[in-house]
Amino acid sequence: MRILGIDPGYAIVGCGLLDYQGGRFSTVGFGAITTEAGIPMPERLKTIYLELTGLMDTYSPDVLAVEKLYFTNNKTTGIDVAQARGVVLTVAALHGVPVYEYTPLQVKQAVVGYGRAEKKQVMEMTRIILHLKEAPKPDDVCDALAIAVCHGHCTGSAGFSL
Amino acid sequence: MRILGIDPGYAIVGCGLLDYQGGRFSTVGFGAITTEAGIPMPERLKTIYLELTGLMDTYSPDVLAVEKLYFTNNKTTGIDVAQARGVVLTVAALHGVPVYEYTPLQVKQAVVGYGRAEKKQVMEMTRIILHLKEAPKPDDVCDALAIAVCHGHCTGSAGFSL
Repeated sequence: MRILGIDPGYAIVGCGLLDYQGGRFSTVGFGAITTEAGIPMPERLKTIYLELTGLMDTYSPDVLAVEKLYFTNNKTTGIDVAQARGVVLTVAALHGVPVYEYTPLQVKQAVVGYGRAEKKQVMEMTRIILHLKEAPKPDDVCDALAIAVCHGHCTGSAGFSL
Repeated sequence: MRILGIDPGYAIVGCGLLDYQGGRFSTVGFGAITTEAGIPMPERLKTIYLELTGLMDTYSPDVLAVEKLYFTNNKTTGIDVAQARGVVLTVAALHGVPVYEYTPLQVKQAVVGYGRAEKKQVMEMTRIILHLKEAPKPDDVCDALAIAVCHGHCTGSAGFSL
């Protein structure tokens, strides 16, 4: 099963692509779609649409995994992140790829085994599980890989399909 | 100038298409893109993407006008509306159509001439300006027409281009 983990944003979309077979992960690739600050939001969303479409055309993931979105302090940023997330979900649907959504608690439990783990622990465990020399940067990329790991570990159990 | 006013939502996307020439509006058409409750959100967003793409291919608007989004009480609904709005902005950018954003205050001032006007007054004035027998239903459609009227009245002055 090929899992595309996505950490949505309007400036940086973290992407992590893993194959999961027989309880083992192999890392296909990871990286970030970035959009330029200062250009109009529709253009930034278009960039995300086009680059993610290219990624999915090239790598044909079986599923897409994203973190559940919550709004906390900065509502304006939250709107823009949600707009970008809408583009990600649309691209998945246009490719017929099912989307699974996980809470931060589920990601922590699946990756670290402890729902109150710190962000640093999640990143370090993701690095270890995927046999990477260093945790990928920026953090959004590592988060995307963590969500993909979470989906692998949760397959057939806890995932909530959107 | 052909203006497509959009009132974004994940269940109903209000659409109003107006031509504005020499200070006069003519109504090209209006209606709603609706998505089925209970189907997965990515599928609902895909429907919005496809139907709006068809609309823009058919009617070739020069500009798209939307209301500025604020979050108030229901944060979960807010996330879903913002996700749908992201799809609308993306479709506009993919068609090379500039997007203008207006606050509710600007819409009220442009349509009724009074920033604290009630929703009912905005709908009635929209009906009168467009010479319609009745205010279109659902309200989302009338809101979309009001935003398009607002853009016509604001052209060259108050509109904030995204």
